Amino acid sequence: MAAPAAAAEFAPAIPDSMRAQGRDVESATYGQPSPHEHKVIRRVRERPPTPTAASAGAPLQDLHGIITPNGLHYIRDHAGTPDIDPAAHRLLLHGLVDRPLAFTMDDLLRFPSVSAIHFLECSGNTAFWKTDRIKKTWTAQDTHGLLSCSEWTGVRLADVLAEAGVQTDAKWMLAEGADGAAMTRSIPIEKALDDAILAYAQNGERLRPEQGYPLRLLLPGFEGNMSIKWLHRLKLGRVPFETREETSKYTGLQPDGTARQFVFPMAVKSVITSPSGGQRLAAPGFTEIRGLAWSGEGRVRRVDVSADGGATWQQARLQGPVLSKALTRFRLPWHWEGQPAILMSRAEDETGAVQPTRAALLAARGPDTDYHYNAIHAWQLDETGGVHVAI
Amino acid sequence: MAAPAAAAEFAPAIPDSMRAQGRDVESATYGQPSPHEHKVIRRVRERPPTPTAASAGAPLQDLHGIITPNGLHYIRDHAGTPDIDPAAHRLLLHGLVDRPLAFTMDDLLRFPSVSAIHFLECSGNTAFWKTDRIKKTWTAQDTHGLLSCSEWTGVRLADVLAEAGVQTDAKWMLAEGADGAAMTRSIPIEKALDDAILAYAQNGERLRPEQGYPLRLLLPGFEGNMSIKWLHRLKLGRVPFETREETSKYTGLQPDGTARQFVFPMAVKSVITSPSGGQRLAAPGFTEIRGLAWSGEGRVRRVDVSADGGATWQQARLQGPVLSKALTRFRLPWHWEGQPAILMSRAEDETGAVQPTRAALLAARGPDTDYHYNAIHAWQLDETGGVHVAI
Repeated sequence: MAAPAAAAEFAPAIPDSMRAQGRDVESATYGQPSPHEHKVIRRVRERPPTPTAASAGAPLQDLHGIITPNGLHYIRDHAGTPDIDPAAHRLLLHGLVDRPLAFTMDDLLRFPSVSAIHFLECSGNTAFWKTDRIKKTWTAQDTHGLLSCSEWTGVRLADVLAEAGVQTDAKWMLAEGADGAAMTRSIPIEKALDDAILAYAQNGERLRPEQGYPLRLLLPGFEGNMSIKWLHRLKLGRVPFETREETSKYTGLQPDGTARQFVFPMAVKSVITSPSGGQRLAAPGFTEIRGLAWSGEGRVRRVDVSADGGATWQQARLQGPVLSKALTRFRLPWHWEGQPAILMSRAEDETGAVQPTRAALLAARGPDTDYHYNAIHAWQLDETGGVHVAI
Repeated sequence: MAAPAAAAEFAPAIPDSMRAQGRDVESATYGQPSPHEHKVIRRVRERPPTPTAASAGAPLQDLHGIITPNGLHYIRDHAGTPDIDPAAHRLLLHGLVDRPLAFTMDDLLRFPSVSAIHFLECSGNTAFWKTDRIKKTWTAQDTHGLLSCSEWTGVRLADVLAEAGVQTDAKWMLAEGADGAAMTRSIPIEKALDDAILAYAQNGERLRPEQGYPLRLLLPGFEGNMSIKWLHRLKLGRVPFETREETSKYTGLQPDGTARQFVFPMAVKSVITSPSGGQRLAAPGFTEIRGLAWSGEGRVRRVDVSADGGATWQQARLQGPVLSKALTRFRLPWHWEGQPAILMSRAEDETGAVQPTRAALLAARGPDTDYHYNAIHAWQLDETGGVHVAI
């Protein structure tokens, strides 16, 4: 176990903090992290040609449990974060409905609400299709950081649609954001009537600006891009709307030359966050291997961990509550002997789906896509205790 | 239901936010709430004679779901918030143990960890023992705000105690904080060996300074004061240590003249947060009654709501997951006819304990205490839609 110093080495001295009054409550009407944690921040990824179409990853290697604090939820936007006055905001609902309607935020808040803990993941997270993109020095924030999990509160989309009256030939729903990208995606009506939420709060408080304030769509388990932020318009139609972000982007070129389009749920996946890239084990001995597993198809059923590059596996403990379409924390006690090791995790969800190897995933889907990579990830632990990307 | 405007009243205009690029991700490496939410803050309560011995309530009327965002977790401290360097911090463990030990934060982080969602409540929350203290204009933040709920991550105290070797005659544990109040409480060894956690993280990130950074004790379900913040010393002994904060304070004078001492679990309790004090229903019609219920003894089993001052009751829906010693969100659809109403909620926990009426609680315990008030709370809704404290 740990090797704490015998108490005699430390006189039960009175620390300086006990010799003075501390900071007054008045100074923290809205609190902030300790200044000692200033390195635990979102990090901007490689900038695309349009500077405001950017992303910033959550520091997974420094996070604990399953909830992502709102200040660190990953960001992906296509035209920056707009400033929207909630009093002026409207949600327009039209198309194949009996009664086109426009809702104020107050209108929506009067509906019955629901709360649920769900992950969001960018479908471009961990796009390790081509090895020349991968840097050995990447941290878990760099490799898997477009992933977060919150308790979302909002109104069931099905209840709002019922107010307008969905016509029988409505099969798809266009959702549009009120940002400079006019982000638009087509959503199958089955999902809209199932567990879709018009979310106005995350982790207790109203949505953060980067997460769609004052209103976002939340499609549990679906690729993050479809959970349209700054939601201002829903239109029902007969067929998909074939928007830019579901034709030229968020599709995958397959080996047979066809596009893999309208792939919605994020497949079962996992990552070890400790020890992980950029971290260092101080000395051989006991450590706990910790990580996150998730599936857009339901609950995580099992996670196995290998310390020898996949030759042998041990079942990890899942930290309860294990919730559907939510991050699940896994833990495994481990004794590091001081030799090099290759650490891997492999998740299985309640549908029986298991994370594939990288080779199997590439054989099935080819290297010419940017989305929905969910292969088993590996970290190389070297003899000095340093950790690097191994795939 | 809601009465949204027909869509024709709002042309599907393009809002200004769609005509420009938004704020860049770089500006939000650690994000903040929307400026439009600037009124959703902790509010400092009536100041005691020692200015830094203060408290600030969470804005329950503006919170959703069960998680309290870290920036809004209630604060109660007795000498302000100290600034502690985690690299210099030590946890001393001594007294009736085989091996006195001192742990660095790195030592503790190597232990197996656990995460759990639990509420914390100050035992002085809602101290409505004497009516002259109560103001009709109070909000839920004023009446019940010393209450919050987080996902805590830390090390099982039992594991750390096992490293030191607990001697058989150790029945109580002193926990001391490294703040200017040298906050100390005695904890029964049964609790220390049960579900007590040495917590280093809340809602994913390291503890906030006001919540005990870098280390706090977390005693699920027990009065908040015992979950010692800025924890730096644990000492095992045969009998309670009879510290100031468990003799002159945090005890209750009973009608027979004796003190009600060492009362640990927070009893079953609930509060309606919407509609609640200071809020206003805009018009008669549908609204959802929303609130929070909790018990330090386990899970909430049932919540009933009355709109007629307790004459009749309706069972509310509990939002899952319903977790032990955690806040539970309840919801009830309701149609307000525009008449005055008295709204009450009454929770029952899995042990069968039910929230008492104020009269029953006062009859049992007398008015001469400041702690552990858990009576049914009432809000008066007047014919204009305004809401005020009714008890």
